[in-house]
Amino acid sequence: MIETKIIVDKKPKLKDPICIVGLPGIGNIGRIAIGYAVQQLKAKKFAELYSPNFFPFVMIHENKVHVLRNEFYFHKGVDRDFIFIIGDTQSSDQKGHYEIAGKILEFLQGLGCKEIVTIGGFGTGKVIENPRVFGTATDNSLIKLYEKNGVNFKLTGSITTIVGASGLIAGLSPQYGMKGICLLGETTGYPIITDPTSAEAILIVLKKTLNLNIDLKKLDEKVSAMHDFMKKLETIQQQAIEQIKSKGSKKDELKYIG
Amino acid sequence: MIETKIIVDKKPKLKDPICIVGLPGIGNIGRIAIGYAVQQLKAKKFAELYSPNFFPFVMIHENKVHVLRNEFYFHKGVDRDFIFIIGDTQSSDQKGHYEIAGKILEFLQGLGCKEIVTIGGFGTGKVIENPRVFGTATDNSLIKLYEKNGVNFKLTGSITTIVGASGLIAGLSPQYGMKGICLLGETTGYPIITDPTSAEAILIVLKKTLNLNIDLKKLDEKVSAMHDFMKKLETIQQQAIEQIKSKGSKKDELKYIG
Amino acid sequence: MIETKIIVDKKPKLKDPICIVGLPGIGNIGRIAIGYAVQQLKAKKFAELYSPNFFPFVMIHENKVHVLRNEFYFHKGVDRDFIFIIGDTQSSDQKGHYEIAGKILEFLQGLGCKEIVTIGGFGTGKVIENPRVFGTATDNSLIKLYEKNGVNFKLTGSITTIVGASGLIAGLSPQYGMKGICLLGETTGYPIITDPTSAEAILIVLKKTLNLNIDLKKLDEKVSAMHDFMKKLETIQQQAIEQIKSKGSKKDELKYIG
Amino acid sequence: MIETKIIVDKKPKLKDPICIVGLPGIGNIGRIAIGYAVQQLKAKKFAELYSPNFFPFVMIHENKVHVLRNEFYFHKGVDRDFIFIIGDTQSSDQKGHYEIAGKILEFLQGLGCKEIVTIGGFGTGKVIENPRVFGTATDNSLIKLYEKNGVNFKLTGSITTIVGASGLIAGLSPQYGMKGICLLGETTGYPIITDPTSAEAILIVLKKTLNLNIDLKKLDEKVSAMHDFMKKLETIQQQAIEQIKSKGSKKDELKYIG
Repeated sequence: MIETKIIVDKKPKLKDPICIVGLPGIGNIGRIAIGYAVQQLKAKKFAELYSPNFFPFVMIHENKVHVLRNEFYFHKGVDRDFIFIIGDTQSSDQKGHYEIAGKILEFLQGLGCKEIVTIGGFGTGKVIENPRVFGTATDNSLIKLYEKNGVNFKLTGSITTIVGASGLIAGLSPQYGMKGICLLGETTGYPIITDPTSAEAILIVLKKTLNLNIDLKKLDEKVSAMHDFMKKLETIQQQAIEQIKSKGSKKDELKYIG
Repeated sequence: MIETKIIVDKKPKLKDPICIVGLPGIGNIGRIAIGYAVQQLKAKKFAELYSPNFFPFVMIHENKVHVLRNEFYFHKGVDRDFIFIIGDTQSSDQKGHYEIAGKILEFLQGLGCKEIVTIGGFGTGKVIENPRVFGTATDNSLIKLYEKNGVNFKLTGSITTIVGASGLIAGLSPQYGMKGICLLGETTGYPIITDPTSAEAILIVLKKTLNLNIDLKKLDEKVSAMHDFMKKLETIQQQAIEQIKSKGSKKDELKYIG
Repeated sequence: MIETKIIVDKKPKLKDPICIVGLPGIGNIGRIAIGYAVQQLKAKKFAELYSPNFFPFVMIHENKVHVLRNEFYFHKGVDRDFIFIIGDTQSSDQKGHYEIAGKILEFLQGLGCKEIVTIGGFGTGKVIENPRVFGTATDNSLIKLYEKNGVNFKLTGSITTIVGASGLIAGLSPQYGMKGICLLGETTGYPIITDPTSAEAILIVLKKTLNLNIDLKKLDEKVSAMHDFMKKLETIQQQAIEQIKSKGSKKDELKYIG
Repeated sequence: MIETKIIVDKKPKLKDPICIVGLPGIGNIGRIAIGYAVQQLKAKKFAELYSPNFFPFVMIHENKVHVLRNEFYFHKGVDRDFIFIIGDTQSSDQKGHYEIAGKILEFLQGLGCKEIVTIGGFGTGKVIENPRVFGTATDNSLIKLYEKNGVNFKLTGSITTIVGASGLIAGLSPQYGMKGICLLGETTGYPIITDPTSAEAILIVLKKTLNLNIDLKKLDEKVSAMHDFMKKLETIQQQAIEQIKSKGSKKDELKYIG
C-alpha cells in the first residue's frame, strides 16, 4: 500500500448527502460526538479508509488483528441523507494529512456530497463548565446558518490555526465542489482524553441545525465506554511514537518490531 | 492531495510575460516587495498553488478557513506583461522545495514565460542603513542588465548558498526554457520579521530595470499592515513546528490535532 | 528504485500454497524459526524483494556485495505447498512497512495463496523457560485451529499492538483475499538477539498445525550460526542508524558515506 | 521535480562502455580521483542528473546560480569507451540513495553499459602512509581481475558495510544486466576532506586494470584546487544541515530560507 485507499463495501444511493467528520483529536470531541451519533442512529458502515500514513502497527481487538482505519457510515435522514466518518487515528506524518483529506473529499464528491462538517476541539488549558462551540467555514451562508444555532465565529485572535484533518478537509472542500464548515468544541485539553460535555455541545448544534434525531440521554454512559477504548489507543500510540522515536537506541530497537 | 497542484481560475493571454516571485523568507523581503507591487499595480489573481509539502494546518482569516497557498497574479505592462507569485509559505520539507519549484516552472512555461526573477534576503546579522541588492543569475545577459541598475553580483565569498524556493526556481529555470535571476536584499536577519527598507531597495531595482510603474510612497504604511499578518503567520508556523516536533510528548500530542 | 520491487527468478506452480513469514524482529524469532525451516526442508529460492525503504547500505558477505533484501522460498508439501519469506531487515521508515506489506500480499495473491502466517516476538522483559506462543488472526476458523495446537489467543491486555511487518501483513491479508494469522513467541527481549527456545516453540506449533516435516534436533546448532550473522547485521544496522542520526555533526558526516 | 531526472545533452555512441563512479564521500576519494581522470582525459560532459533528494539549496559559483547535480562524461578509449560520473553531492535522505542508484543504472543500461566501478573511501581513523585499496564485487571474474592488480578483497571483518551510492550502485548493478565492483581507498577519515594519496592509489589500480592513460603527476596540484571547492561545499552543506535541523528554533528559522 503506497497510497491511501478507500475500500467500498457497497456504494449507497444517497439523497443530497451531508458529511460529518469526527476523527480523533483534542479531547477526542469529534470522535466521540460522531461515534455516538453513529451508534444512536444505527448508521450503516459502507466503506473503510486505510493509509500508509497511519502508524505502522496493528491493534489486537477481541483476539482479532485490527489495522488502523477510518470508517464511512451512512444514515437515511428525513429531508436528506448523512455520511459519517469516524476512525482510529489521523495521519502520523505531515504530508499524509493532505493526502487523506484529498482522498476523502474525492470520494465524497463521487457520492454526490455538496456539504461537509468537520468536528475538532479547541484546547483552552482551563476547566470549562459550559463549553462553547466555535466555527470557521468556507462560505457565508454556512456561517449565518450555524451562527443562528449558537456557534461562535468570532475566533480570530483566540484560535488562529487548526492542525490536521478537521481543518484541511473543511478548507479544501471548495476544490471538490463542496461547502465546508469546521466546528470546534471548547475543551480543557490535556489531560482529558475524552470530553463528553464538549461533545454534547457539538451534538446539540448538529441536532438543531441538521434536524438529526439523536437522543443525547445515553451520551455519558456511551462516552465512558468509548473513553476506555480511546485511552487504550492513545496509550498504544504514545508508546509506538516513543519506540519509533528512540529507534536509535539499541534497547528500544529490539523492542520495536514484533 | 498527493502532489503540489495549481488551480487556474482563468488562464490569461500574456505578451512576453516576465515572472517575479516573492515568497516568505529572511526578512520576508520578497513577500512584502512583491505583495506591495501586486497591491499598487492592482494585479489580478488568476491561479493558486496548493501543496502537501506545506504545513498541515489551516488558518482562520476573517471567520473563513484559509488553506496555505501561493498565488499567481498578472499585470498588463507597457511593453510586456507581468506574472507575480506571492504566498503564505514555502515547503516545510526538503524535497518539497524541488517539487514546488518544478510545478511553478512548468506552469510558467505553459504561459509562455521566458524570464523569471526571484526575490530573497541575505541576512548579515548587522544593522544596515542602506541595504545593497545582491544577485546571481543563469545568464550573462541578465547579469549585465541588472548590474547596470545597481545589483551587486560579486557575492562569491560572502553569500555562497541560497536555501529554498528563490534559489531553486531561478537555478532550475533553464530546464524549462527560461533565463532566471535571483535578487537578494541585504537585511539584518533575526529579529526583523519584515524589512521594508530592503524591500524598497529591491523594488527600486525592479522599477528601473523592468519599467514597472510602482509608486513607492505608501510602502512603509502597507508594509506595517503586512508586518502584522506576517508576524501572525510566523508565530503560528513556529507554534506548529514546535507542536509537531514535540509530538512524542503526551502533553503536546493532545494539543496537537484539532 | 522508487518503489519496493520483487524480482522473480522462476514463478513456481504451487498447490493451494500457504505462506509463512519470518522477518527480523524481537528476538529474531520469526527470522530464525523460518530460516531454520528453509534449511531443513531444503526449500528453493524463487524471488527476492528489494526496497528503497530498507537502509541505504550494502553488506559485504564473502567478498561479495550484498544489497539488503527479503527472500521467497517454496517447498512442495504433502497436501499443499509452502512459501517461506525470510529476510535481512524490515522497513527503516514508517510508511515503508505498509508499502512492503502490500507488495508481498499482492505478489502472494498472484501465486494463488489464500492463507498467511506471520511470526513475531513478544518481549516480556523477563527470563522465560517455557515460552508460550500467542496469536491473533483475521478469522475465527484460524483461531480455533491454532488454539487446538497450543496457541494462546487471550492476549488482549498483555499485548495490545504489533509494530511492523508481521502485524500489517496478517492484518491486511483479507484485502488480498486471504486469511491471516500472526504468531508471537514469548521472549525476554533485550539483550537476547536470537531466542532459539522461543523459535522452537513456534516451530512446534507450525509442525503440528501444518504437517510440516521439520527435524528440530539441529535447531540449537544452526541458530548459533545464524546468531552470529544476525548479531553482525544488528550491529551494522545499529551503527548505520547512529551514523545517519548524527549526520549533522561534521565528524560523523565524514564517516557516513563510503 | 518530484523524481530524480537525467537531462541528456547528446547521447554518445559508445563501444562496450565501462562506467566509473566517483561521488563525494569519506575523504572524497572517488570524487577527486574521477574528477582528476575527467580533467586529464579531457572527457566530454553529455548528461546531468538532478534530484529532489539533494539538499534544497543552490550554490553561487562565479556569479552564476548552480543547482546541485551529478554529471556524466564520456571518453573514447583504445579498446572500449568510458563513462565517468562525478558530482556535487549524494542523496540527503535515505530513500533517495536507492532512487538515484536506480536512475543511474537504468540510464547506463540504455547506453549499453555492462560493467560499473564505484569508488569510495574506508575511514580507519589512523594516519596511513601507503593506503591500500579494498574491494567488493558482484562477480568472481571481477574479483580475480582486480585482485591481480593489487586490490584487497579480504575485508570481511574490517569493513562490513558501505553506506550510500557507491555500495548501492555496485550492489544493484546485476538487476540492470551489469557486473559491478566497489573500490574503497583506505583513508584517515576526519578531518581530511580530500585525500589525494588514497585517490592516487585508486587511480593506479584503474590505470593498470582498465588501460586508462592518466598522467598522475599533476594530481597533487589539481587535488589542492579541488580541495578548496570540496571544502566550501562541505562547509555549506554542513551549515545547511544544521540550519535545517534547527528549523524549530525561531532564530534559525528566520535565517533558514533565502
